[in-house]
Amino acid sequence: MKFPRVHTLKEVSEIIDSKFVGEESFPILGMNEIHVVEEGDIVFVDHPKYYDKALESKASVVLINKTVECPEGKALLVSDDPYRDFNKLTRHFRPFQSSSMAISETAEIGKGTIIQPNVFIGNHVTIGENCMIHPNVTIYDHCIIGNNVTIHAGTVLGSDAFYYKNRPEGFDKLLSGGRVVIEDYVDIGASCTIDRGVTGDTIIKTHSKLDNQIQIGHDTVIGKKCLIASHVGIAGCVVVEDEVTMWGQVGVTSAITIGKKAVILAQTGVAKSLEGGKTYFGSPAEEARDKLKQMALVKKIPEILEKLKKN
Amino acid sequence: MKFPRVHTLKEVSEIIDSKFVGEESFPILGMNEIHVVEEGDIVFVDHPKYYDKALESKASVVLINKTVECPEGKALLVSDDPYRDFNKLTRHFRPFQSSSMAISETAEIGKGTIIQPNVFIGNHVTIGENCMIHPNVTIYDHCIIGNNVTIHAGTVLGSDAFYYKNRPEGFDKLLSGGRVVIEDYVDIGASCTIDRGVTGDTIIKTHSKLDNQIQIGHDTVIGKKCLIASHVGIAGCVVVEDEVTMWGQVGVTSAITIGKKAVILAQTGVAKSLEGGKTYFGSPAEEARDKLKQMALVKKIPEILEKLKKN
Amino acid sequence: MKFPRVHTLKEVSEIIDSKFVGEESFPILGMNEIHVVEEGDIVFVDHPKYYDKALESKASVVLINKTVECPEGKALLVSDDPYRDFNKLTRHFRPFQSSSMAISETAEIGKGTIIQPNVFIGNHVTIGENCMIHPNVTIYDHCIIGNNVTIHAGTVLGSDAFYYKNRPEGFDKLLSGGRVVIEDYVDIGASCTIDRGVTGDTIIKTHSKLDNQIQIGHDTVIGKKCLIASHVGIAGCVVVEDEVTMWGQVGVTSAITIGKKAVILAQTGVAKSLEGGKTYFGSPAEEARDKLKQMALVKKIPEILEKLKKN
Repeated sequence: MKFPRVHTLKEVSEIIDSKFVGEESFPILGMNEIHVVEEGDIVFVDHPKYYDKALESKASVVLINKTVECPEGKALLVSDDPYRDFNKLTRHFRPFQSSSMAISETAEIGKGTIIQPNVFIGNHVTIGENCMIHPNVTIYDHCIIGNNVTIHAGTVLGSDAFYYKNRPEGFDKLLSGGRVVIEDYVDIGASCTIDRGVTGDTIIKTHSKLDNQIQIGHDTVIGKKCLIASHVGIAGCVVVEDEVTMWGQVGVTSAITIGKKAVILAQTGVAKSLEGGKTYFGSPAEEARDKLKQMALVKKIPEILEKLKKN
Repeated sequence: MKFPRVHTLKEVSEIIDSKFVGEESFPILGMNEIHVVEEGDIVFVDHPKYYDKALESKASVVLINKTVECPEGKALLVSDDPYRDFNKLTRHFRPFQSSSMAISETAEIGKGTIIQPNVFIGNHVTIGENCMIHPNVTIYDHCIIGNNVTIHAGTVLGSDAFYYKNRPEGFDKLLSGGRVVIEDYVDIGASCTIDRGVTGDTIIKTHSKLDNQIQIGHDTVIGKKCLIASHVGIAGCVVVEDEVTMWGQVGVTSAITIGKKAVILAQTGVAKSLEGGKTYFGSPAEEARDKLKQMALVKKIPEILEKLKKN
Repeated sequence: MKFPRVHTLKEVSEIIDSKFVGEESFPILGMNEIHVVEEGDIVFVDHPKYYDKALESKASVVLINKTVECPEGKALLVSDDPYRDFNKLTRHFRPFQSSSMAISETAEIGKGTIIQPNVFIGNHVTIGENCMIHPNVTIYDHCIIGNNVTIHAGTVLGSDAFYYKNRPEGFDKLLSGGRVVIEDYVDIGASCTIDRGVTGDTIIKTHSKLDNQIQIGHDTVIGKKCLIASHVGIAGCVVVEDEVTMWGQVGVTSAITIGKKAVILAQTGVAKSLEGGKTYFGSPAEEARDKLKQMALVKKIPEILEKLKKN
């Protein structure tokens, strides 16, 4: 998430009322979580275990809860609660704007695109040309949709990441300021839900096709020419490479990678990264032929027991 | 479900055109199913197997299909079809009112609450302060929502219980007159469905957080500070105690209890009540470490077969 | 899918700019996929493996990519790309009509039917008497709904089939020109999605009851008096016979048959046709008692290993 203009370290420290280490005029371009952070960005860290990772990341500014040594060419924002203050920045730079109209005046909609009745299109949404948006679709603020995209009825793009910090007084939500980006020639079925990124983008790449009732978590990237069947649930921060096929009711845990051309059979539960080019089955997922062999072997247990009785 | 005012036994018997046993002026406060029935209420029973349970329950009035001995201090409504007549009472006391407006004039909406476009809010709904109701949400009549609640797009609160009696001529629906109650600081993701209680309340307690596409059945109670991931389905009349965590695509059968702080791993199928404080996996659910051990043991079968061949 | 009037072979060949074999005046009544094709219809075939099946089917006209011998009493449409040209016909005979109103003027709605706010009803939809359509429901063009049907909030009827041909340049969608047909006394829960047929009908037969968040694929037929619990996903071209029960989160693969009165326990994955009258469990599905026996046997492996150690 980039800021609308470059801000200085001093300006940002005033927004969150924090101390800072570095030049007052140190330029800041945006803010991002650790897995998508870029040069010029703020990243936040509040656990000593992850200090080094944050300080050594591409981030130019680290929002941290201890005055550590500042790496060369970087700056620090020092706060007693970086998580809270990162949320404060999201609220400042991406404030929620309520909508009085079903289709915001700030939305840009391309030529030849059909918007059916009862659709909600939020602020600063961009939709390309020759798209078809069916009834009762919801597109939250800042989403970006390419050309020749079809979205079936009841689908929701851009709902918040499911991401909470467990505090004694209750779960504290990490606010979502990111986007959903749907590339050209993507089809999305009915009643799908695609959460936006926390600071980055949830992306469905070109020519991928999604069936109905699919859930895609925040910051997940679906590659090109993927086929995803209904009731598949993919958690946050997953990378699905190109030409992956997932059959119905597959579940995928967060922050893993599914390799190119992998095929994941129905109801499989993916609990860790999978190599591409193979077929998987089971919960947790194994190579399908191994899993099916194991299931056949279980049927031999009565015979084994019989033999042992004789011995 | 309480009646809007106290009714007499005679009045109620006239509504359903039944006989009664007891004083004409015997006061009736409401009606409820057996698992939530309270003093002053009518309960219904139509199978001899459950007569004693109903007669010994807290109910003050038993709607029954046989003239049995009336317990001290109680009354009977005697009908040839208590199920039909219980529905008749629901229809009488909680009649469906169609809505001509998307937001009913009888809905009460608290200060600071934002209602986005295309939301439906039914009759007699109460929404507290500082809530955020995203587009295309449906809130049926009589639902109650606390303060600081967020509901994402496409979610449905208050649809009917999935509850039918199998009659020769077809399934006969038990009508739903209950409510959905969402307590303070609850977040509900996009495209969730939460059915109302049949006569009681389906409740999501304070500080619980639900991801997208979750299904919660009628009369189920979700405790405080629970975390529920996407595509979880929980049937009716379930008690989920406080601080339970359920990962994606978990399924829970009806009328069981999941103990405090239980953790239920993804795709687990819960077929009976579970003790709190433990981690579960598998379909049907077992303690996760047991289940994973079993899965590892299956891989030893080829070795066992090898050994047996040698013997 | 029948044409609005009888067309001649010559007329149709001009629509798709193809050659033909047969009398110019050969009458054509409609077009259908192979599994639902009837006399008078066009069927398409583009793979030599399926030529015979198409030529021997009930179709009167075969749209084919080779000039083969024309069977007696039939005709051919010869095209270099029958899939593309079948889509061209669907586009011609069932063109998408965008809607400017939430309820189309061409929709017919029966007496006593209640349509709640924010519902979308497309062109040429027919809804019978005494139905209840709750808020935010979407009913695409040409759907047919009987009498005494209840549809809960957020449900989508008539979205496109999930059916693509994998071309080098991307997935090429088979256009959907079929319908969804909901018979009398059907209840459909909240946020279900039911795709229409490609050329035929997706049908839910009388007295069947669907819970929330169910997915039904294109051309699938659900029999009479079926009970389907939430999060069940049924792929396309499935036949579910009468009085089948499916518990929560069951998945069913495409183009199979589930026999009358089968009971399918929660989370089961149905990968092939199942005989009626039995109870099934597991993924892939087996008879429940066999599957549960196998699961019990796995727990004997430690004992087997112990015994082998002693031998």
